[in-house]
Amino acid sequence: MSETKAYAAKSAATPLEPWSLERRDTKPHDVAIDILYCGVCHSDLHTARNEWGGTVYPVVPGHEIVGRVTKVGDHVKKYKVGDVVGVGCMVDSCRECDSCKEGLEQYCSGGMVGTYNGQERDGSGVTYGGYSKHIIVTEDFVLKVSEKLPLEGVAPLLCAGITTYSPLRHWKVGKGDKVGILGLGGLGHMGVKLAVSFGAEVTMLSHSPSKEVDAKRLGAHKFLLTSDKEQVKKVSNYFDFILDTVSAPHDYNIYLNMLNTNGVMVCVGAPSEPAHLPAFNLIMQRRSLAGSLIGGIPETQEMLDYCAEHNITSDVEVINIKDINESYERMLKGDVRYRFVIDMATL
Amino acid sequence: MSETKAYAAKSAATPLEPWSLERRDTKPHDVAIDILYCGVCHSDLHTARNEWGGTVYPVVPGHEIVGRVTKVGDHVKKYKVGDVVGVGCMVDSCRECDSCKEGLEQYCSGGMVGTYNGQERDGSGVTYGGYSKHIIVTEDFVLKVSEKLPLEGVAPLLCAGITTYSPLRHWKVGKGDKVGILGLGGLGHMGVKLAVSFGAEVTMLSHSPSKEVDAKRLGAHKFLLTSDKEQVKKVSNYFDFILDTVSAPHDYNIYLNMLNTNGVMVCVGAPSEPAHLPAFNLIMQRRSLAGSLIGGIPETQEMLDYCAEHNITSDVEVINIKDINESYERMLKGDVRYRFVIDMATL
Repeated sequence: MSETKAYAAKSAATPLEPWSLERRDTKPHDVAIDILYCGVCHSDLHTARNEWGGTVYPVVPGHEIVGRVTKVGDHVKKYKVGDVVGVGCMVDSCRECDSCKEGLEQYCSGGMVGTYNGQERDGSGVTYGGYSKHIIVTEDFVLKVSEKLPLEGVAPLLCAGITTYSPLRHWKVGKGDKVGILGLGGLGHMGVKLAVSFGAEVTMLSHSPSKEVDAKRLGAHKFLLTSDKEQVKKVSNYFDFILDTVSAPHDYNIYLNMLNTNGVMVCVGAPSEPAHLPAFNLIMQRRSLAGSLIGGIPETQEMLDYCAEHNITSDVEVINIKDINESYERMLKGDVRYRFVIDMATL
Repeated sequence: MSETKAYAAKSAATPLEPWSLERRDTKPHDVAIDILYCGVCHSDLHTARNEWGGTVYPVVPGHEIVGRVTKVGDHVKKYKVGDVVGVGCMVDSCRECDSCKEGLEQYCSGGMVGTYNGQERDGSGVTYGGYSKHIIVTEDFVLKVSEKLPLEGVAPLLCAGITTYSPLRHWKVGKGDKVGILGLGGLGHMGVKLAVSFGAEVTMLSHSPSKEVDAKRLGAHKFLLTSDKEQVKKVSNYFDFILDTVSAPHDYNIYLNMLNTNGVMVCVGAPSEPAHLPAFNLIMQRRSLAGSLIGGIPETQEMLDYCAEHNITSDVEVINIKDINESYERMLKGDVRYRFVIDMATL
């Protein structure tokens, strides 16, 4: 066992503060990683404040991890000391169910093991995430990271990147498709970059006129102000695919009605209130409303390789870990373009 | 113009009664049809009673029509006098939009012309349906019907048949798939027969234990009592596809949670109240909730040919048109196995 510095929330009501935790010894299939950068995801805040329930305190958030390998177990084949690697939202799964066998570990029938606030499959307790100096992860859940791109911009790809890449790929979005991206935040800005790179015609759907300049800078071909009824009316039955990245409660029906025949809207944000959905809005035009959760390990590797090849990273603001609580407040106000990333050298 | 006997509702509050209407003269592309049988669909009742709004009175319902050709226009190529033909839910569409060009006339961007209570595209007024002696329809919206099967059992295929056939085909349901059919009525009993014939493992999902015997007789391999929590729990993440034929308000989430990874639930019934849907139930397992509306003309023909080849018809109770109002009351109580069909010789 080795001690590592970390930042933890000790209760739902208290800010994150310095803490120290014990990492397990490196087992034969384990990779020990010195964390360089860790992205700050909205899920970190939800979990730190127990907004989804089930948080075990102290909790160490962080699942957008990029670091360097410092040690590998005897049976590790894919990594060696010095390699730059990533860890995303999962650190284990059952590996035996149909989903795991298909490389869809996020849908593991036994439940994937979250990178933080998860329960280790061997009963050894809770998992602690990337707001820490070191982490030890079984090699099958470690990703190769190219050193070609700035690593602080790569870290958010491990959650925001794969969460948007996976549905765009699963539903085969590409050239000739009219795509709407709903919401321009950590997820939405990656959705725009990726959908544009896949050759789709991309429209940013936002209720903030102030987002137009940025959306176009990110590559969006069009901008639609969702509070403008005339603009909304013009795109009824227009889109082939809408990626809904909004996790605040909102009316799905406005966007479903923008879908053309066979159109699909995929939710990657989970609002705290259920949507109200008349079946009629699906029946007309044979529309689908779907959900998607991050992505499996093989697809996460594919996404990292794709982003390295196409020079795609997240737009980030690098922070000192001491400023994490202030960053949470700014994130709540949407005051970040588009992801905070902790420079772990500041810990 | 020619006069034809019919049954019509003259207001939302009055029963259907004998009426007489004028059919247009046969135009060059028209087929004149002597109606033999007309199925009784729940939509007929909704429209007669203006439950969806927009009913123009008097209204002559009926869109599950089988009859014999009595006359054809000069340019008609596909039909000749004496042919047995069918007419379903549509009698026209714009024929120019992408949906029409793809043979998905039901999703016509200009709106399909319903067989009754629709507006003719030439501005000549409202359409009158199959509760009548004769009908005149443009040949592109007339279907060939094999005389091999009992025609009274074929009539409901024009709506109940295609409404279930189309989503099962579109989502490629077949051998190896675990399929749930929700609700055993006019639509549900066709869903069971068709899904079984496609080679799927079919489970009837019903809250009535009394439906089990019939479900199995229709070919269902399993029966699941949806009011039994233990049975419901056993099928969590089980089905690849659920066809939801229920149009009474119900909780979708019970059934969404029965879907396995990548599972799809398709609604063909439109409850009068919106469903409440937490995105989480879609995000977990990458599930989809979709809708589907009848089927296009080419697919309706394909379905009729398929049913003729595989000896599939609807289970029907043939009625005298004088009993139509009583039949509506019985339909409301679910007291029909599984479709009333009017013998038009009784008119």
